[in-house]
Amino acid sequence: MRIAFLLYDDFTALDTVGPYEVLSRIPGAEVVFTAARRGPVRSDMSLTVTAEAALDEVDAADLLLVPGGPGTRAQLSDGPVLEWLRAVDATTAWTTSVCSGSLVLAAARLLAGRRATSHWACLEELGKLGAEPTGTERVVVDGKYATAAGVSAGIDLALSLAGRLAGDPVAQSIQLLIEYDPRPPYSTGSTASAPAELVARMRANGLEIG
Amino acid sequence: MRIAFLLYDDFTALDTVGPYEVLSRIPGAEVVFTAARRGPVRSDMSLTVTAEAALDEVDAADLLLVPGGPGTRAQLSDGPVLEWLRAVDATTAWTTSVCSGSLVLAAARLLAGRRATSHWACLEELGKLGAEPTGTERVVVDGKYATAAGVSAGIDLALSLAGRLAGDPVAQSIQLLIEYDPRPPYSTGSTASAPAELVARMRANGLEIG
Repeated sequence: MRIAFLLYDDFTALDTVGPYEVLSRIPGAEVVFTAARRGPVRSDMSLTVTAEAALDEVDAADLLLVPGGPGTRAQLSDGPVLEWLRAVDATTAWTTSVCSGSLVLAAARLLAGRRATSHWACLEELGKLGAEPTGTERVVVDGKYATAAGVSAGIDLALSLAGRLAGDPVAQSIQLLIEYDPRPPYSTGSTASAPAELVARMRANGLEIG
Repeated sequence: MRIAFLLYDDFTALDTVGPYEVLSRIPGAEVVFTAARRGPVRSDMSLTVTAEAALDEVDAADLLLVPGGPGTRAQLSDGPVLEWLRAVDATTAWTTSVCSGSLVLAAARLLAGRRATSHWACLEELGKLGAEPTGTERVVVDGKYATAAGVSAGIDLALSLAGRLAGDPVAQSIQLLIEYDPRPPYSTGSTASAPAELVARMRANGLEIG
């Protein structure tokens, strides 16, 4: 089973590494990190990871994952990346995204009329790109398209996909291996649970911290 | 505030990237990924990340984080890495680990007699290395030493540290930004909640999946 992760400058590292840590452990998984060019790709905060293949070296995948991040902005115009997404999507069993990665899938016209989610700050834009955004579920599945909410939601997405792809016992083993028994120290992880004032402040300051 | 992440071959990517995604967003944070040599470092499953500095280029840090992974095994013998850890630890406000990274801290004699945790499969070894292992908490703080349970526990560790370092509002904002409102699809994320048969099987097969 071939799993392709798209990389681009200013992606958010955890959007990719959360799902990778789960999906790469499915027996038989072959993971490839791909980007416009082979070589180092810098994430939004500083971490640099290596793309092992250029886009034109990857023409098919069983599972495709598009991460989000500030760099999605530069991926929304039609061009080689969206063309590549459409071509590989024609070969996939699952086409997936984390966070604002769903904007890129929508820009490639792959989510037209489909229920989908994104980072909470991007749901309105997701609707403008032709999807039917839902902000109440952490992982949204519509046909073969599975989209996750912001950043850390990719772990939940990937465990859910692991169960569908390899069966519950495999996914349960991976969850135990990565000791995924989360204990968030605050209750501010979603717009539904965080104080309205905090959500409004984050929206107003363009998601800057501090 | 300087935050140093140790890298070594066969580290587990999420052990590092989970905390990095949180800690790098603290206003004023300067993150450095460091390893025996500058350049690409391969994680246990395939992802390669870039070490920006060799160990001898980093002589101090406010926060030091050691990830775990199968590669910890090769780090437990005394040598340059343990010497570096002891030297940098003398400068830190926080010395921390995720997963089996605590074995490396213990091998450097930094956890002698201290309460600490690790991946559930490594707690016994942590005790043999001189720490006082506790398997009931996801994040254990003893003085300036903060250790997390397996892999995904680094996110909880980092949010807790962000609160201590920068105040609750900053940590709460980061939690909202990364939409950390986890919804694990199974209840198998800890040895306390997973079926005993699953835990026994994973122990017996050396944590192999499948």
